[in-house]
Amino acid sequence: MVKLKSLHATPEAVESAFYDALEAGDVDALMEVWSEDEEIVCIHPGGPRLVGHQAIAGSWREILSNGPITVRPSDPRIMQGSLVSVHSVLSRVMAFVKTEGLPPGAQQTGQAMSINMLVTHVFFKGAQGWRMVLHHASVTPQDTETIPSPASGTLH
Amino acid sequence: MVKLKSLHATPEAVESAFYDALEAGDVDALMEVWSEDEEIVCIHPGGPRLVGHQAIAGSWREILSNGPITVRPSDPRIMQGSLVSVHSVLSRVMAFVKTEGLPPGAQQTGQAMSINMLVTHVFFKGAQGWRMVLHHASVTPQDTETIPSPASGTLH
Repeated sequence: MVKLKSLHATPEAVESAFYDALEAGDVDALMEVWSEDEEIVCIHPGGPRLVGHQAIAGSWREILSNGPITVRPSDPRIMQGSLVSVHSVLSRVMAFVKTEGLPPGAQQTGQAMSINMLVTHVFFKGAQGWRMVLHHASVTPQDTETIPSPASGTLH
Repeated sequence: MVKLKSLHATPEAVESAFYDALEAGDVDALMEVWSEDEEIVCIHPGGPRLVGHQAIAGSWREILSNGPITVRPSDPRIMQGSLVSVHSVLSRVMAFVKTEGLPPGAQQTGQAMSINMLVTHVFFKGAQGWRMVLHHASVTPQDTETIPSPASGTLH
């Protein structure tokens, strides 16, 4: 039986499905939010531009192999047309991280860290409802901060 | 006499006007390419999100106070609708730079440097023709390189 992709009635529903898939660590669900257009574009912070389903799915598979990612999106700025919606979103990414290659302020292994990103999302409306066609994420270094891990081990 | 803003017939014409204004160091011309919508969004590499004409014009005025910027855009990926056009562009920024705060690979004062950026542009078509509504630029650090200044002074 062929599983049909979800039909999203609004751009906001697509964006929610995107963040839900990240939090579930589910690459298949994550790729379902994208348009079937092969020219879709995804830019991870500091990374190259990825074009097309195969490259984009591969990158998310690698990222999510480290575990799910919780993102707290906030303060959306939305420019909406009848067939397009452009979202600029502040995204606080919550993650447990290793010590190598960390931004200043996060020194301990296993520390919970949040990184503030700026994300541009573009959604097009087509025959399959609203779908994502572009994800461009970049870090805003000055907002990088470390928060204490709620489950951090303290040596006694 | 009121000077009328240019009417751009295509998104490509707006983008060309944007890069021409950067190369001319002309903030007024640069701001003419933007939509009159107050929710326009501009993100410079590593910077905060700027919303609205005043904040955006102020940022470009500061950037261009150091002199014009030559950008060589290449390899555009374009997703086009009837009233929207989304461009993902590789942008090589050519600049003369000072020594403070440089990326690795550029050590000398007055050295010509190029930095590769990934830029997302969104253009909407309205009563004033095509206009920019979003500019999101981020550096791809692994592509940062230094090129020799063609006019560098050599001590004899």
